[in-house]
Amino acid sequence: MTDQGARAAAILAEVSEISEPGPGVTRLPFTPEHRAALDLLTPHMETAGLTVTLDDAGTLIGRKEGPPGSGTFLIGSHQDSVRDGGAFDGIMGVVLPILAMEKLHSDGIDLPFSVEVLAFADEEGVRFPTALIGSRALAGTFDPAVLSMQDAQGTRLRGAMASFGLVPDRISALARDPNGVLGFLETHIEQGPVLQTEDEAVGVVTAICGIERHLITLTGETGHAGTLPMENRRDALVGAAAIVAEVNRLGQETPGLRATVGALTVEPNVVNAVPRSVRMTAEFRSPDDDTRRDAGDTLHRFSQAVAAQHNLKIEAELTYSQVAQPCDETLSAHLSTAARAVGLRGLALPSGATHDASALADLCPIAMLFVRCRDGISHTPEEFASANDMGLAISVLSKFLRSL
Amino acid sequence: MTDQGARAAAILAEVSEISEPGPGVTRLPFTPEHRAALDLLTPHMETAGLTVTLDDAGTLIGRKEGPPGSGTFLIGSHQDSVRDGGAFDGIMGVVLPILAMEKLHSDGIDLPFSVEVLAFADEEGVRFPTALIGSRALAGTFDPAVLSMQDAQGTRLRGAMASFGLVPDRISALARDPNGVLGFLETHIEQGPVLQTEDEAVGVVTAICGIERHLITLTGETGHAGTLPMENRRDALVGAAAIVAEVNRLGQETPGLRATVGALTVEPNVVNAVPRSVRMTAEFRSPDDDTRRDAGDTLHRFSQAVAAQHNLKIEAELTYSQVAQPCDETLSAHLSTAARAVGLRGLALPSGATHDASALADLCPIAMLFVRCRDGISHTPEEFASANDMGLAISVLSKFLRSL
Repeated sequence: MTDQGARAAAILAEVSEISEPGPGVTRLPFTPEHRAALDLLTPHMETAGLTVTLDDAGTLIGRKEGPPGSGTFLIGSHQDSVRDGGAFDGIMGVVLPILAMEKLHSDGIDLPFSVEVLAFADEEGVRFPTALIGSRALAGTFDPAVLSMQDAQGTRLRGAMASFGLVPDRISALARDPNGVLGFLETHIEQGPVLQTEDEAVGVVTAICGIERHLITLTGETGHAGTLPMENRRDALVGAAAIVAEVNRLGQETPGLRATVGALTVEPNVVNAVPRSVRMTAEFRSPDDDTRRDAGDTLHRFSQAVAAQHNLKIEAELTYSQVAQPCDETLSAHLSTAARAVGLRGLALPSGATHDASALADLCPIAMLFVRCRDGISHTPEEFASANDMGLAISVLSKFLRSL
Repeated sequence: MTDQGARAAAILAEVSEISEPGPGVTRLPFTPEHRAALDLLTPHMETAGLTVTLDDAGTLIGRKEGPPGSGTFLIGSHQDSVRDGGAFDGIMGVVLPILAMEKLHSDGIDLPFSVEVLAFADEEGVRFPTALIGSRALAGTFDPAVLSMQDAQGTRLRGAMASFGLVPDRISALARDPNGVLGFLETHIEQGPVLQTEDEAVGVVTAICGIERHLITLTGETGHAGTLPMENRRDALVGAAAIVAEVNRLGQETPGLRATVGALTVEPNVVNAVPRSVRMTAEFRSPDDDTRRDAGDTLHRFSQAVAAQHNLKIEAELTYSQVAQPCDETLSAHLSTAARAVGLRGLALPSGATHDASALADLCPIAMLFVRCRDGISHTPEEFASANDMGLAISVLSKFLRSL
């Protein structure tokens, strides 16, 4: 077990060297770094008995053929990182399944279904203003219009993929027949502190939270902070502060809801001027869509009341919303059982972040296994999961596959 | 009366043409625009029977000599504007006294004391990071160290003054003997909405508010807004919002206090990250120093409690403080009487902003006459005082001078 974990750590350390210059890991899709990462993963897949191909969305596929006519179980995550990111987010969810398959291979175990280990090109959406290209291609939800999007250097996605040796116009042909796909399992660092707080190596995800984001602009009137009497003020920041407090109250008091005002900008933002306007965001996430929508409705009513009370103009816009994706109960039960079989608790927790599994949910039942990450941090060079925890995760994965 | 007001409006319109290019008025000290403004004012002073000189601080002085051995009453304001400012702030407090003196001159009235109408070079402190040069010179509080300060082009104050024909090393000799100065009266637009709300042309200032400014930095911990549970958060913006609400509560509930959080900056300030830190200002102004200091103390205690409650690190700094300057009761009573004599109420109100009178308070009794300005706005091209109100102010000034 520890052995497999140490090997995972060694491979991840090796992959993390494949990065643009700078702190941490920067590995963007359809770049020389992406190519080098695939070249490094390929022999590991082959050692695990997998047949390796690259599809036209840039997804590296290591396939273990099952009995004729059997379905295929998909397992994987993404190869790309954010800028100055860490060595685990995404890529760990490719390496651990490879080692789980290698274990089954070396133990001479044949599964009664085909397995594909997938390394998607792009989940983070850092290079192009789109994401989940590979997982959407398999789910049949890829929108060809995004091929015209440009990166910061003006390169279009279509051209970047062609230069990588892919044929973008064939992506629509990648959509899988749902009848042939048994499910998708994604392994990922938690990106939160729950497992560390619970002192547990892995957790079983109950659902990927739905998200909604609101952009609120309050506009009052500025004036000299010394000469404008208090009673006539239309101070946008005073209104905004009440909204910040209310969003936090909703998060604190509503089970399962995470509520955050992450961005807030004041104009004119000088010490001796009453704030004229505030632009702020509010974000709600919950595994339960009704809980999230209720919070959004409460925010809407509260903000309108605050604007009326302080004589402010308000513009409120729902800028983003995404429904929750519940994980499949059967697959999740198998994961919990596998976790308990290696001496863990099979702890259940929601995923606050979006993953490739969110896109695959349109194709097949999904499940996710979270691995504890130190201090709950991710997307930084300090991102870390221990070899021991990864070894336990590999054991859970191989037991899970054998239990299906 | 209306005649004098119309003349004031015409002169101010003419002076407002003397400006750097751009919207509104930009007339900075020791510039060609400053020189042109003095050249325009000088003949008006002479028409009013004043003898015109320029002192080494760049203050234009129009003096009407009184009986031998009599004291001198000072009356004036500043010639400079902010960038893209208006046609009234400062310069109106030079033009109206000139016209009041002209009225006395044409009516053949000799006052039993000398009068000096003053046009200070710099009150706004826009060009150099110092202000009140001329008024401090007269009060004997000018600090020669500021002569080394540079403007945005790297010109030192000393050099700018020398190029203007002044001898900066003689500024210390400008300090007046307090025994020879009867008082200082400044006429200024209100820069607030009180007179407009009260439908009154002028008001008598009770005191120039004291000011204190606090810089508060709250530091917690950032994290992914989706993955960080609510109960473990150290959200700096949630703490800051409570402080914004408390500062506003203090201002609303404390008579005579103006309380403002004008600037607030969030880091990292993105929609899906819990705010790590907030840097914010709080400013209190009051004509009563105890009221202001009590508010500062309450803020300090409240902020510490908020930081403890939300597990935030707090740094709080008093970045600026200035005591209140009460206006002289006798001079103010004369002003009120003069206002009532022209059919006004002699309404009393505090000044929330600092003025040349603040510096002159170190030399002699001070008084201020506020003139209604449209919508309470200043420091913008839209700044406006009506000819009728200015005409009434000129009448109040001449009656005031005759009543002393």
